[in-house]
Amino acid sequence: VSKKFCFSLVILTALSTALPTIAFGASADERAQAAVDTRQGLLKVVVSYFGPIVGMARKQIPFDAALVEKNAAKIAQLAPMIPDVFRMDTRAYDLETEALDNIWDNTDDFADKAATVAERAAALSAAAADGEAAAMKAFGAVGAACKGCHDEYRVQQ
Amino acid sequence: VSKKFCFSLVILTALSTALPTIAFGASADERAQAAVDTRQGLLKVVVSYFGPIVGMARKQIPFDAALVEKNAAKIAQLAPMIPDVFRMDTRAYDLETEALDNIWDNTDDFADKAATVAERAAALSAAAADGEAAAMKAFGAVGAACKGCHDEYRVQQ
Repeated sequence: VSKKFCFSLVILTALSTALPTIAFGASADERAQAAVDTRQGLLKVVVSYFGPIVGMARKQIPFDAALVEKNAAKIAQLAPMIPDVFRMDTRAYDLETEALDNIWDNTDDFADKAATVAERAAALSAAAADGEAAAMKAFGAVGAACKGCHDEYRVQQ
Repeated sequence: VSKKFCFSLVILTALSTALPTIAFGASADERAQAAVDTRQGLLKVVVSYFGPIVGMARKQIPFDAALVEKNAAKIAQLAPMIPDVFRMDTRAYDLETEALDNIWDNTDDFADKAATVAERAAALSAAAADGEAAAMKAFGAVGAACKGCHDEYRVQQ
């Protein structure tokens, strides 16, 4: 029995409880639904880091430079994942989604807009130490970048 | 009209389409459900980066060092977010979740286990260039770290 085979066994045993069955042997419809769930999941995580900073902007909670620095850094990591989770073109499937079909006609622009969110989130993280006014200005730029993508590629609400 | 106020207006306008209503004025039940959705969302993103590497381990797709390097780096960024999205103690709520109550009795250990996943994912990313055998060995260690957390803190399947 080869060493490689043993590694494979260990891996597959370890992963048997770690991955949902959707990953393998799934139908195209199941894969499309999983793609939508993953897309929406990623954006929920972004929102969870955004939320406290919005609360600060609305004066509902006190400005917290350390939290802004941390959460914006997380958003800067998450935003570049957006094009990854939108890679599967789900236009042909009957799905509940707010994603517009033109995403897959404009994948370069879509990726650019995600990159802009990431850059501005990194700038916000860096600006957090410069005080509330500087941070809130940088936060406005992040929000505008989010909106820029939603205006093009998400169902209008 | 102060400059700060103008910034705030710009921010709130930009964000009005960017955030779900759940973030503000939500009931405790709604916030708990949003926490579950966010937790599950984050893990779905992890799974989406994991999937191709599992496919390589199962010889369903060819080994791709660049993809392993990239995806493992993403998992290394995502794993430290796990304790963040599990911060809200939802034990008191009636929710559909596979998260076990003991997470919130052992938050330090839970965070340590997430940190171990992140460390091993970073090691996998670095090992990808060393060839398939080295990468698959490092991948086994990541899978074992996932399993270590699931065994303690997730409903057994």
